[in-house]
Amino acid sequence: MGPLGVPQRFRPWKDHPVPGSSASSPVGLHRVLEPSGVLPQAAYRLDTRAAIWPDEVRVRVERLNLDAASFRQLFDKHRGDGSRIRAEVLEIVRSRGKMHNPVTGSGGMLVGVVEEVGPQSRLGLAVGDEIATLISLTLTPLVIEDDLREWDGLSEQVPCDGYAILFGRSIAAHLPRDLPARLALAVMDVCGAPALTARVVRQYVDAGRPPAVAVLGGAGKSGSMALAAARRAGARTTVGVVPFDHEAETLRASGLADRVALADARDPVQLAESVEEALDGASADITIVCVDVPGCEHGAILATADGGTVVFFSMATSFATAALGAEGLAADVTMLVGNGYAPGHADFALDVLREVPGVRALFEGRLAAEGRA
Amino acid sequence: MGPLGVPQRFRPWKDHPVPGSSASSPVGLHRVLEPSGVLPQAAYRLDTRAAIWPDEVRVRVERLNLDAASFRQLFDKHRGDGSRIRAEVLEIVRSRGKMHNPVTGSGGMLVGVVEEVGPQSRLGLAVGDEIATLISLTLTPLVIEDDLREWDGLSEQVPCDGYAILFGRSIAAHLPRDLPARLALAVMDVCGAPALTARVVRQYVDAGRPPAVAVLGGAGKSGSMALAAARRAGARTTVGVVPFDHEAETLRASGLADRVALADARDPVQLAESVEEALDGASADITIVCVDVPGCEHGAILATADGGTVVFFSMATSFATAALGAEGLAADVTMLVGNGYAPGHADFALDVLREVPGVRALFEGRLAAEGRA
Repeated sequence: MGPLGVPQRFRPWKDHPVPGSSASSPVGLHRVLEPSGVLPQAAYRLDTRAAIWPDEVRVRVERLNLDAASFRQLFDKHRGDGSRIRAEVLEIVRSRGKMHNPVTGSGGMLVGVVEEVGPQSRLGLAVGDEIATLISLTLTPLVIEDDLREWDGLSEQVPCDGYAILFGRSIAAHLPRDLPARLALAVMDVCGAPALTARVVRQYVDAGRPPAVAVLGGAGKSGSMALAAARRAGARTTVGVVPFDHEAETLRASGLADRVALADARDPVQLAESVEEALDGASADITIVCVDVPGCEHGAILATADGGTVVFFSMATSFATAALGAEGLAADVTMLVGNGYAPGHADFALDVLREVPGVRALFEGRLAAEGRA
Repeated sequence: MGPLGVPQRFRPWKDHPVPGSSASSPVGLHRVLEPSGVLPQAAYRLDTRAAIWPDEVRVRVERLNLDAASFRQLFDKHRGDGSRIRAEVLEIVRSRGKMHNPVTGSGGMLVGVVEEVGPQSRLGLAVGDEIATLISLTLTPLVIEDDLREWDGLSEQVPCDGYAILFGRSIAAHLPRDLPARLALAVMDVCGAPALTARVVRQYVDAGRPPAVAVLGGAGKSGSMALAAARRAGARTTVGVVPFDHEAETLRASGLADRVALADARDPVQLAESVEEALDGASADITIVCVDVPGCEHGAILATADGGTVVFFSMATSFATAALGAEGLAADVTMLVGNGYAPGHADFALDVLREVPGVRALFEGRLAAEGRA
């Protein structure tokens, strides 16, 4: 009997079968060391043995791309001290068997080369393929073997030598040949945002009500993608909201938003007023939150029209703040948890990058700035 | 200039105008003491002065109804010691000026009698009206004046003498005359769940695909309401999921669910299998999470069919766990934050209670059990 007195019927991962046996789980339950009975993302610690189960794939890791919220938290905690940031990343991966920031709960993704493919793997990968993982590092068994010597601890993109394990149902994408790896990786890292944005906008368009879309953090990576996706999907108008003058200039130059508004997304009244001003007195039908700082829930709700939709992509979102905030404001808005997965999301995002010069310029600018930092 | 270098244009609440002046905000910004610039729900501390602004209403409080997640946290922390639970509630309200549990981030609601109505109030209330607040206690200025002497600290319903303040845009409902106050209060406390459940089910029905709906925690208050609402809205079939045999019996006796499944919602594989078994091999089109314990996100996602919808009503939901969980499982599901507000939600829930004997029996049973506890 389980902890709540219910019968335990199916617990294959409890036995931790040795590699070579066929008792693996497509979602990686067999790699969970503690606590037992949870999925790999909820686990404290994963089994990182290099030998693979028959449906697994082992990847030689070349680069990690840390989630923006996670990197920001580490950067702030260590006040920009790169060697301390690096030491903490190493310690997290060593103790948990995965890059899972315990404060933000987020991870990132990785790029590497396929090293071994189990005979029962259905991921369509072959040894030598250059791939990026499209599942979070928070559930990917990972071993770092070079102490991150090539990384200064000061950028989200982390050169790395080590290995990672993909499960039967993991998702990986081949790196496109027409784009630099760093650029493709940065795009795929945020590819859930444009896919879901486009889907929500299309629902309004299909209902005969092309929406006004506000994107908070419109000059960022997921934000710029969301703006471009909203326009492609038929938004009536788009507003990019940014907190700084220099970001407003960048966003204006990119041409990605019909209007650019200046506001601190953590200041609900200021934010709502800025969006209203940009929309000539109306509120947004759809508000997309791509700002990786806590405290943007109330502003997003207040900036959205009754009957509208808020999509939260920021990992800094608080569920209770959003739920109780809408209730407290008597706001009849639909609030979506930004799902990082949708079928075809990576290809969709790469297409947006290829076809929208403003997005590509913005991504390249960000990567160049990171390279200089 | 504000903290992020953006201009501050509209900060009426910074001055804390004295009552009698007209500078109040409909969402209560003028009652925020710290930190400034946030909405009352996000505030650490509220101004609880008894004198009202012209658009406010003061209510003589008779009873608090603590949010289930909040009460459970306090109960567990103090190991069921009622006097300690009471002491902590008093301390929270004294220090914050509102009943806002700092751990769960949740509050509850209250019942009372209107004591004074500002000349500019548009809430439609008159002195002497018996009302319940439909906004959270986490944003309601509250003063307790009887040290909660009448409460043993062991139930969510708290007899109380004191006063509370409603803002210009707060929501309050008259207590129905045909129902006992405790019963009406318990219904209104969860009235967001049936309203949103019905709305989501109707979207599937309107699209010609009457859905199979699974409700986790189907024998609870919000869960039983959600089951009844799903059926009324045209669900093809409903499954109530509960962790204990005695709850399964209660739920079966109520007749609220077409099928009853036994599973611990925190065990993803067990939960998904139970739902599948109840649905003859299919997954749920819509999964409603009404279980007030952490760790139900992965199970809810795994129990839901591709293209389906998960609605999270539990305040114990982790945003990051839901977002990354769906991504990690490559699950194409729409995930909604359960908004506690929808137009007409209180009347809708009261109608469900009046018209569905199984719901009323279940609520009355719960209240009787609380009375005995």
